[in-house]
Formats: sequence, C-alpha cells, structure tokens
Amino acid sequence: MHPLLEEVHELLRRSTVEFAEARVEPLAKAIEVNGEYPRQLMGELGKQGLLAPMAPPEYGGGGLDFRGEVIIIEEVAKHSPTLATLMEVQGALIIDSLLSHGSREVRERFLEGLVKGDLIASFALTEPCCGSDAGAIETRAVKDGGEWVINGRKAWVTSGQYADLYLVFARTGSIEERHRAITAFLVPRGGCIEVNPMGVMGIRGGGTAEVSLRDCRVPDEYRVGEVNRGFYLAMEKLNLGRTCVGAIGLGIAERAFTEAYDYAQVRRIYGGTLAELGVIQGYLAQMYTQVEALRGLIYLTAYMRDKGLSEFTKYAQAAKYLGSSTAVNVTRTAIQVMGAVGLSTESPLEYLYRDAKATEVYEGSNEVILYSLFKMLRK
Amino acid sequence: MHPLLEEVHELLRRSTVEFAEARVEPLAKAIEVNGEYPRQLMGELGKQGLLAPMAPPEYGGGGLDFRGEVIIIEEVAKHSPTLATLMEVQGALIIDSLLSHGSREVRERFLEGLVKGDLIASFALTEPCCGSDAGAIETRAVKDGGEWVINGRKAWVTSGQYADLYLVFARTGSIEERHRAITAFLVPRGGCIEVNPMGVMGIRGGGTAEVSLRDCRVPDEYRVGEVNRGFYLAMEKLNLGRTCVGAIGLGIAERAFTEAYDYAQVRRIYGGTLAELGVIQGYLAQMYTQVEALRGLIYLTAYMRDKGLSEFTKYAQAAKYLGSSTAVNVTRTAIQVMGAVGLSTESPLEYLYRDAKATEVYEGSNEVILYSLFKMLRK
Amino acid sequence: MHPLLEEVHELLRRSTVEFAEARVEPLAKAIEVNGEYPRQLMGELGKQGLLAPMAPPEYGGGGLDFRGEVIIIEEVAKHSPTLATLMEVQGALIIDSLLSHGSREVRERFLEGLVKGDLIASFALTEPCCGSDAGAIETRAVKDGGEWVINGRKAWVTSGQYADLYLVFARTGSIEERHRAITAFLVPRGGCIEVNPMGVMGIRGGGTAEVSLRDCRVPDEYRVGEVNRGFYLAMEKLNLGRTCVGAIGLGIAERAFTEAYDYAQVRRIYGGTLAELGVIQGYLAQMYTQVEALRGLIYLTAYMRDKGLSEFTKYAQAAKYLGSSTAVNVTRTAIQVMGAVGLSTESPLEYLYRDAKATEVYEGSNEVILYSLFKMLRK
Amino acid sequence: MHPLLEEVHELLRRSTVEFAEARVEPLAKAIEVNGEYPRQLMGELGKQGLLAPMAPPEYGGGGLDFRGEVIIIEEVAKHSPTLATLMEVQGALIIDSLLSHGSREVRERFLEGLVKGDLIASFALTEPCCGSDAGAIETRAVKDGGEWVINGRKAWVTSGQYADLYLVFARTGSIEERHRAITAFLVPRGGCIEVNPMGVMGIRGGGTAEVSLRDCRVPDEYRVGEVNRGFYLAMEKLNLGRTCVGAIGLGIAERAFTEAYDYAQVRRIYGGTLAELGVIQGYLAQMYTQVEALRGLIYLTAYMRDKGLSEFTKYAQAAKYLGSSTAVNVTRTAIQVMGAVGLSTESPLEYLYRDAKATEVYEGSNEVILYSLFKMLRK
Repeated sequence: MHPLLEEVHELLRRSTVEFAEARVEPLAKAIEVNGEYPRQLMGELGKQGLLAPMAPPEYGGGGLDFRGEVIIIEEVAKHSPTLATLMEVQGALIIDSLLSHGSREVRERFLEGLVKGDLIASFALTEPCCGSDAGAIETRAVKDGGEWVINGRKAWVTSGQYADLYLVFARTGSIEERHRAITAFLVPRGGCIEVNPMGVMGIRGGGTAEVSLRDCRVPDEYRVGEVNRGFYLAMEKLNLGRTCVGAIGLGIAERAFTEAYDYAQVRRIYGGTLAELGVIQGYLAQMYTQVEALRGLIYLTAYMRDKGLSEFTKYAQAAKYLGSSTAVNVTRTAIQVMGAVGLSTESPLEYLYRDAKATEVYEGSNEVILYSLFKMLRK
Repeated sequence: MHPLLEEVHELLRRSTVEFAEARVEPLAKAIEVNGEYPRQLMGELGKQGLLAPMAPPEYGGGGLDFRGEVIIIEEVAKHSPTLATLMEVQGALIIDSLLSHGSREVRERFLEGLVKGDLIASFALTEPCCGSDAGAIETRAVKDGGEWVINGRKAWVTSGQYADLYLVFARTGSIEERHRAITAFLVPRGGCIEVNPMGVMGIRGGGTAEVSLRDCRVPDEYRVGEVNRGFYLAMEKLNLGRTCVGAIGLGIAERAFTEAYDYAQVRRIYGGTLAELGVIQGYLAQMYTQVEALRGLIYLTAYMRDKGLSEFTKYAQAAKYLGSSTAVNVTRTAIQVMGAVGLSTESPLEYLYRDAKATEVYEGSNEVILYSLFKMLRK
Repeated sequence: MHPLLEEVHELLRRSTVEFAEARVEPLAKAIEVNGEYPRQLMGELGKQGLLAPMAPPEYGGGGLDFRGEVIIIEEVAKHSPTLATLMEVQGALIIDSLLSHGSREVRERFLEGLVKGDLIASFALTEPCCGSDAGAIETRAVKDGGEWVINGRKAWVTSGQYADLYLVFARTGSIEERHRAITAFLVPRGGCIEVNPMGVMGIRGGGTAEVSLRDCRVPDEYRVGEVNRGFYLAMEKLNLGRTCVGAIGLGIAERAFTEAYDYAQVRRIYGGTLAELGVIQGYLAQMYTQVEALRGLIYLTAYMRDKGLSEFTKYAQAAKYLGSSTAVNVTRTAIQVMGAVGLSTESPLEYLYRDAKATEVYEGSNEVILYSLFKMLRK
Repeated sequence: MHPLLEEVHELLRRSTVEFAEARVEPLAKAIEVNGEYPRQLMGELGKQGLLAPMAPPEYGGGGLDFRGEVIIIEEVAKHSPTLATLMEVQGALIIDSLLSHGSREVRERFLEGLVKGDLIASFALTEPCCGSDAGAIETRAVKDGGEWVINGRKAWVTSGQYADLYLVFARTGSIEERHRAITAFLVPRGGCIEVNPMGVMGIRGGGTAEVSLRDCRVPDEYRVGEVNRGFYLAMEKLNLGRTCVGAIGLGIAERAFTEAYDYAQVRRIYGGTLAELGVIQGYLAQMYTQVEALRGLIYLTAYMRDKGLSEFTKYAQAAKYLGSSTAVNVTRTAIQVMGAVGLSTESPLEYLYRDAKATEVYEGSNEVILYSLFKMLRK
C-alpha cells in the first residue's frame, strides 16, 4: 500500500479497477477513437458510488475523502481519459460546488441525480472571447424580479452537447470589475440553450460544445454561492479539478509505461527482445521514475486537501502542471518504444497521446497554471 | 533568397505555394481530419511537375535537383503533411528507385504514369514480424522459370489501400543471411494482393494498410536492382526519404510557428494581446530559432546530395531526427500559445500535432535513425 | 510538517539548520570554492550526533531511522554539497557497513570514532580500469596465514587524501567471476598507502584522491562481510548512498530555488522587479514544482526503507537519478534568473551548479543507475 | 569544405588550428583552471592577424569578412573559450566600434595596437545597478570645455583587470531618457580607474573585474560615435558579438563531442567498449546532430552579415541562444559519457562545462536575447 493512502483507498482502487476492466475497457475505443459520449457509463459509475465519492451518503455518495476521488480518476484514466474527465467535472467541479454553495432547493432537486449519474452537468466558465482569462467573461446575468436572465456564449464546454444542467458563470457587474463581479448559476437545459459540437484532438468522446444562452431564466435559488463570488467559487473548485487533471495525467502515464514495458518484453528485434536494448532500457527506467515522482506529488496533493494543509492550493497547481506534462512526455516516449504499433488505433497509446495533450490545456493552460502558482508562492 | 538555394528553387517554391494554397488548403481537413485519400491531388501535382521534380523530362519530370524536391515537400507539408508524405514516397522512394535500378521495361511501362500521378505506388518494406529491423523480413520471393513468386505480409504501407504498384522487398535467401539476401520487385496490384486498412493517429489520409501477397507472380524484368541487393537499394533511397521527412518536419514547424505567431498578435488577454506576455514572447522566439536551425540543416542536407558530398548520408539521418523531433516540440508549444483553439479541428494545429508524432516513427523510428547515424560516424 | 515525516525528523531538521547556518555557511566558500577539506566540521557534526544518526546510541549514534539521515543530508547540502557528500559516505556507506557486517573487533575499535567524526573513512570501490563497471575491479586480496595482503589502485576516492580508514573492495577470485569474487576489507591508513589528489569540477573540498595500496596487510577480522560477498555489500549500502545523493540534489535544488526567488523579488529591472516578468514567474513556478516532486520522491524512498517496503531499492535508483538531474536543471535555471551574479563566487549558485553536475556522475553515473533500475523492474 | 564557407575561410581555419594546437592547448589549463590571463597569447594572435581579421590591412588586420572571424573564434574556443571570449570582445566589439565610429585621432593612436594585441581593451557597458537592462545605466559623462568627465561603476567587465583601454558607455542625459541618452567613450587606463577582480565560475582567466571611474577626463575626440547614440552602437556591435558567442558555443560543443566520441571508442566496459552500448551510441548521434544544426546556423548568420542580408540581426540572436544552450547540453551529455574523468581537471570537459554556462549569460542573458529576437520578429 502506498504510504500516503489508507486501506479504504486501496479497496476503492480495487473496485474501480474491476469496473474499469469490465465496463470501460470494452468501450474505450468507441469513446476515445469514435468519439461516442459514454452517458451509459456515467450512470453505472454513479450507481457504483464512483462518480462522487466525496458526496455524503444522504445524496448517494460515498462520504469519502479526496484521495478516494483521486484514486478512482487515476484508475479510470488508464482506460479512458475522456471518461475520467467527465467524472472529474461532475464530481469535483459540479457536485462539490452544489454541496458547499448550492441552495437547499438545488441540493434537494439535483444532487442525488448528479451523484447517481442520472443527470449530467457541465461547468460553463470559459468563453470564446477570453479563453484562459476567466476574469474577462462577457456572459451577463441580470436580476428581473425573483429571477435571473442570462445571455451569453460559452466555449469548450465538456459534456456541453449532452448535459442536463449547466453551472454557468455570468457577469453581474461591469466588465471593469473583472473577477469581482461574476456569479454562478445552475441552468437546466431547455429551449433557451443551443449547443454546437466542437471537433477536438483529444478527449474526443467528451461531448465538447459551444453553448449559447438566450434569455435563460432561473430563480434566485439556482444561484450557486453569493452574488459576485462566482469567480472565487470556480477557483476553489478548480483546485480540486486541477488535482484530478494531475491524476488523469498519472493514469495516462502509468498505462503508457505498462504498455511500453510489456511490449518491450515480447517484441523481437535483432535476434532478441526490445527490452534487451540499452536505449529501451533507459527509456523504461526514466518513465518509471517520472511516473513515481508524479504519483508522489498527486497523492501528496490530495492528502494535503484531506488534512486541510495550506500547501494544498500550491500543490494543486503543481499537480496539474506536472501531471499533464509528464503524460505528454511519457506517451511520447512510449510510442517510440512501440514504433508504428503505438500510432495505430489498435493500441491505447494512439488515444493516450492525444488525450495527454488536452490535459496540458484544459482547466487552465499550463502557462496560466504556472502563473497562478507563482502568485501563490508570494504568500 | 536562402543562401543555400538558387533562383530555380525559389521559383519552384512560388509555384508550389500557389498550388498548395489554391488546391491543398481547401482539402486539408478532408485529408487530415476525415482521412480521405487525396488521389485526385496526386494527379494534379503530377501534371504540374511537382510530384517527381528530379525525374528527367523524358518521363515528364522537371530534371531538377534534390533541393527542388525538398522545397516542394516543405511547402506542401505546411498544409497537408499526409500529402507531402505520399509525394515523398512516390518521388524519393519509388520513382528514384526505378530510375536508377529499374529495367528498361519497367521504366517504359510505369515511370511516366508515376511521374504524372496517374499511377500510385507503395514502398512495401516493413513487416509485422520485425518493424524497424528490416534485415529480418520474412516475405519470400522464389524464382520459377522466368518469373518470381512472392508470398508474405507487409505492414504500415503508406498508400497501401490505393496503390496500383507495390515496390516489394522480399527475401531471396535464408533468414540467417539477413539484409544480404533481400531483393526488390515491382508488383502490380492484382488478385494476389489483399489490403486491410490500418487506423492511425496521424497521416490519416495516407491510405495506410496491411498488404498480403499470395503467390504474386512477376517477370524477372520487374525485379528492381540486383538479386540480394534490395536492402542496400532501400537504404540508399531512404536517405532521400529521410531528408524529405525532415522537410515535412520543417513545413509542420514553420506552419505551427506562423499560426501561433499570428494568433498571439490578435488574441486579447488581460487587456492586451497574447504577444505582449513575456512567456509567449519567449516561446515564439524559441520556436523561430528551432525552425531556422532546422531549415539550415535540411537545406544543407539536400545541398550535399546535390553536390555529391559524402557528409550527405550522415546529414540525412540528422535531418530526419531533428526534423521530426522539432516538429513535435514546436507543435506542442504552438498549442500552448493557442490554448483550446489549437486542440480544435478548426485549427491546423490539431492535425499538425498528430502528424508530427508520426514523423518521429515512420521511415525508421528515431532510435533506429540515431543508431544508423552512429554507425556512420565511425567511418 | 511534511506528511511523510514525523515529529522527530522535524526536530532533527531544526537542529541541523541551526548547525548549518552557524557553522557550515561561514565555511562554505572555503570548502566549495577554495577546496578546503572540512575535517573540523566532521568532528563537530559527529559530536552533535549528526554524522551517523542511524547508528545505535552505544556507539554515539542517534538510533534514528533513515529519514533522519536524509533530512540532515538535505539541510547540510543547502550550504555545502561537499560536506553532505562526506557525511553520506561516512554515515550511509561506511558506518552502516560496519554495523551490519563488521566483526566485533572492528566495531569496537573504530565505530565510535567514526560516529563522532574523530576518524574519517573512505569507500574505496571504483578503479581507474573500470569506472562504473564495479564488477571488473582488479585490486587483489590474497590470504596469507591469518592476514590478507592487498594490492591495487583506487580512483575517485572521496576523502581519499585525508581518510584514516579505507573500506577497500578487492578481488578474491578470478577476473572472470566478476562481482561474485569481491570481498570488502577495512584498511587503516599506513605506509602501504599512497594518495594522489585529483582535481575536480565540483565537490571540490572533498579530498578526492587516487589511492594506491602496496602490500597492505590486514587481519581477517578486518574483513567486512563474507568472502566473495563484497559486491553485494556495496550494492546494498549504495542503495542508502544513492538515496542520500538524491537528498543532496534536493538540498541543492531547494537552495537554488530560494536564492533565485529572493533575488527576483528585489532585483530592479525595466522599472520594476525581476519577479514581475512573466518569463521569470514561469521559471520560478516550474522550479517549485520540480523541487516538490523531488521532495516527495526522496522522502518516500527513505520512508520505504524505514518500513522495510520492497519498492525501496527501485525508489533508491529513481531518487538518485531524479535528484541529480533536477539539481542540474534547477541550478541552470536559477543562474538564468540571477544573471552574472549567479556565475560569481559571491553567490552559492556558483558552486551549487558545479556540485550538481557531480551528483549526476558519482555513486554510479545516471546511465548505470537507470540500467540498475531497469533490471529491478523485471522483478 | 562547408557549403557556406569559401577557400579563404578554410585556409584561415587551418592556420588557426595550427596556432591553437601549438600555442593555446599547452596553456589551456593555466587559463581555464588556474585563471591566468593570457595576455601573451593575445599579442601572438595579433601578430598572426587572428585577433581582428576584419580590420583593414592598414591597421594590421586581414581585411577578411565576418565568417573569417567566426571560424577563428570557433577553433580557439575548442581549446580555450576564455581566450576566444577575449578575442571576440577585442575584435568584434572594440575594434569594429572604433573602425566604424572612432575619430581619426582614436583610430590612428590605438587601432594598430589593438589589432596587434599590444593593447587590450574592455567593453564597459554593464553596471551593477541594472545588469541586462542596459538602458538603465547610471554612469555619467558631463561635458567640461573640450573634455568629458566620467563617473560611475561598471561590472562584469571582461579583461577589466588588465585592459589598457575601456570603451565606456555613459549617460549623457536623464535617466528617464533611458537608452536614448547614452554615449560611448574610449577611456585609457589611468589613476582615475580602479579595478576589483571578480571571482567567476567559467571564463576564469578572463580578468573579469568591477571597474570604477572617478572623474576620468577624456577629450571629445575620444567619444566614439555621436552623442546619445552609444546604446545603438552597442547593440549594433553586440550583433557581431552574439554571433561570436554562438561560435564559442559551437567550438565548445564540437570539442565536447570529439572528446566523448574518442573516449567511447577506447574505454573498456562490460567486456567491450563504451561505444558498443546503445545508450552511448544514441548520445553520440544526438550530439552530432546538435553540433551540425548549430554549425549551420552559425555559418548562416555570419554569411548573412557578409552579404548584408536583413535576416542577420534575427539570426544573431538565434545564434547566441542556440549556441550557448547547445554548449551546455552537449557538455552535460559528454560528461555522462566520460563519467568521473569528465569531471576531473585532467579533461577539458571540466572547464568546457563551466564555460558553456557562462555563454548562456554573458553578452545578454538568453532571456534578454529571446526578448530582443521577439521584438525583431514583429518587423
């Protein structure tokens, strides 16, 4: 057992591995290569308690800690980084937001469905105008009696094509107030919402879409958190989300290492096996080192959150940055070990390499992550 | 004009740019994202004299030097690395092989069609058994009267699904004799050949296939080069091919740099443009440096071949290695500059990144390239 | 407190920090720039119980675990990687060898002196003939009555110029038996030993020397471990040593990060501070990430040894490899932050950069480390 | 012959190689390890016409082009990067400044002595206040009758300890005017100048010093270039200087490659040679590629200057950046090939590694170089 984990995490890992091998692996290529959205699997994961392990049992969750979430994400990512991404959005970004900041009504109406995977929700923060500069978003919410009227356009919305609910971040003040005038709202899908699929290199089955809101009306109870505190809510939850992206990177890197290692043991070349060549041996030992250093950082990050240690927010950025860049580096090397086989859709490397690149960009491009981390260093 | 080029090369560049912008760019996504094989474009390129610029005019070629070929490949690769790959296989691997080693009959029957792009040929060397270890191939050719009977299975054959002709490398001696008992044959497509498409991450419209030969019979005139000299023929032509792969890497890297640079100039962030951020400025300056260092190496390599300098073979390996790895590095950084836009199928970066990875593997994985280069250093 | 450490380790860290700031820092340049051997400091460290924290109290040690040792090494390395190296050789390689494999006589005669730093011992394994290929050493030990007669030549012996004792690995069988015929002996300095100082780039005050043994005679009681088991003893202790080298890398990287960070906060440029420049911010955030990922790996490695986990030996190699290469990378970047100041002997960066490079080479060059790690992966 | 060079350059290379092997190599360790300033060699180089090959014959120069200068620098750097640096400062920064902008009196009085190496001059631009931010320097020059009175403090002045003349850049307007109010003056050494040696990691025999000027008086004829145009003069000459730094990086990298290659051929390990190990083969092939790509870029840069091509200034920055970082990368790898031998003062690697790091910093740290390059891209 890893020194930073407890018995319960390893039990969880075991049941996740079982599920992933039995249910995710057979669908992996459909999701990752053909771009099919794994709605059915989200429901199954929810029923198994794997979609929101941190949610309290009253909503169908496992009442576990953050390390539990991270282990599940890591194991699912070994088979489908896309599915792991959907889970992380639903579990760390959406459900945790509603748990901590949702009104009683919102919690009662939606939480159990989200936890069980019967409902799917998107995190609708990024806009075409301003990408990583979330403080500049232009979507507007205006109070009209007891309701809010929301207009705007969101981009790169994971699950956007298929979501039942959208956690929409909208401006509730002037553009000049930037991140100090943004509020979050839960918006159920309806006629006011139009979605346009976006073609993407990686995370292909994620249902990524541009989402337009035209005069969407929600009651004040659907506001999540205080007025003008939406940006801070997003940042708080993104610390969880970014740690999970790090865990996706870990899962990708581990799988890539295993694929390359196993292939090198059996592939014949020059009268021996690949694994007898010095260059390949060096690659594999380097990959092992990168994976284990990353594993330590990811588990430490989740541990810090579980124990309420203040280093957590710094570590969360580091986890995102190191996890994603390690995933790119390790998949790149793994393909060199496997040669053309690694480029073919016969091998998971084909999609792991594409998905790895997405992790360098989503939930804050690594440049934004490093800048956020730098600002935290000052404190 | 670049110091290593001459007037004629720049003229050729200009007509290639015109063609590429008018004809290739509009089809780029069909080829690179949807995986459509650009058969029609091959014919057009042939008619324009851009498919085999080194072939003599009597066969419809341009009678130009190798730098001419490299410039064309570079410019086409900016729009479609897949098409550039098809051109490089047809021009540098196939046509040059037939010109230097084909029988009179083969040259008369096929060369003009190949030069004009009416015929497509595949270079069928690699086998599932042995990948980069070309000296271990198992396809066999047996003399039977005036004919050769060929049986075996080839993998990762570019254009394999659509080719009219296959330049097949087959064993004409024992397995133990390795690369000293391999002979090349031109095999027209026919009932003895079965092709199975292979799904691939990059170079998606390349018609890559597994090709099975069952009792294919060809006359001795279809033998290309002497018996048991096929491996040496392949290596000689791969020096051209690998230089061209370097040129594809150059085209990819240049395009990626240009896309990122232009985007940074206009994309708004934090009240200014991306190009005002120090980190982005540093990335762009580094990319420029990598591109120009690569450009120098590629043009030098082609120049050396044109002048018959003995450094050429070493430089050819260096060109392949640096070209492909620079393409991966620069596209990776370019996507960081562009953020999610660079991951979307709206941007050429989406396919340039996938294609770049293929260049690290095909025509000899970079590890094989470095090993070949090392052996040449000893001399 | 770091999740992988306990109260006792942090107490130890605090007393080490105090000692290092009061006693090591003032002498750092004498050791690292002028190459003075810190014999006096070794005695002081011994008296403080910081030289062999794992040795039992009966010999003057602290009876602590391996994490204790690692913390001390890390903290001393922030001021003097050379001193940390001497400590690691004395504590992890020599004293631990004598504790586990020394005869009663050897332990009684020498251990307390070594623990207290009154005696200095060298680990004399490497030879000019064969460098990293320790299985090929040529120094010979021949039994002559109750004594062993040792002849040979050792190279790159840390403390070699100043040691009172040498733990000498010598061949006790044929060359062909390689590592299966090597035995360890403790050889007190005397007339049979001749030392020649070796000039080195880093770890300059380490007293590195070539050591020649001519007919050195030691009683059988000075044999350490069984006959022909010396190589295995060396490898066992090098797992400790290599973890410590990783800890030296950690200390170097932390200090480099701190120096660069502090400098960036105050150094004026373009009307602001260095720390306001995006490129510098990115560097600092990357350095932080690299340091924390390394910290996790080092503490995990030591933890595994303390708990007797079998992953320890793999982690020990990974710790050496990642620790040393991170030290080189981080010092390289830190100097870019500091500019010419970082190159000057006014700054610790000047020696940290040189010392970092040594850690990539000593106690097994990183290529040997990766090869060792690879072989362990197979199990 | 390299495609970018002409006969005359290869002749020059041959005579430089002869000189370097006969005269520089025997003194290399005195300069690079012991820090002895090679004043005598500067005189010899001057007499041979190797110190200022671009100066016209009337001053004792060779009347050659910039490629000539670059070849000499490259060849000397293989033995002593310190000496190459002194030459580059004298030839590209000082002499070229006086040739293009010096008054008749200055040229007549000093040029021949400088060209012949009887006089040594320093380029005194950088100040402790502001390092890479040359536009912020504080040294002041005030007109007093027909004379200028100069006060201030310069840092990191190469040859500062030993120079006979200093090309001093001083403020002739307000601080706010930044680089638009700086003027250059030639200041002969005298009582008004105080020098303090600075200890440095690399380029150790370069006589680096802090230089204080107290009421130094020079006639207006000693002004170099127009009033307030000194910054532009510095930048113009630094384009030459930075190309030369790239050439120093090339020389360092070539020598490191050769040392590692030769060592690998003869060093025994595991019953064979180092050169038989796949990892080492890969390293050597990579180093070759890096060296040749760099060589191309350096010669292209010099060629562009010789032909007056506008790309020159961009290429000059790229040459500095790639040359210096390649030198660090290649020496780092070369030491891994050579193991501890490469760390010892017996091997040139010991000083090449230290000197390489200096090239990343001096004449503009690479971050400043990339920023300059970025600004040039816009045009």
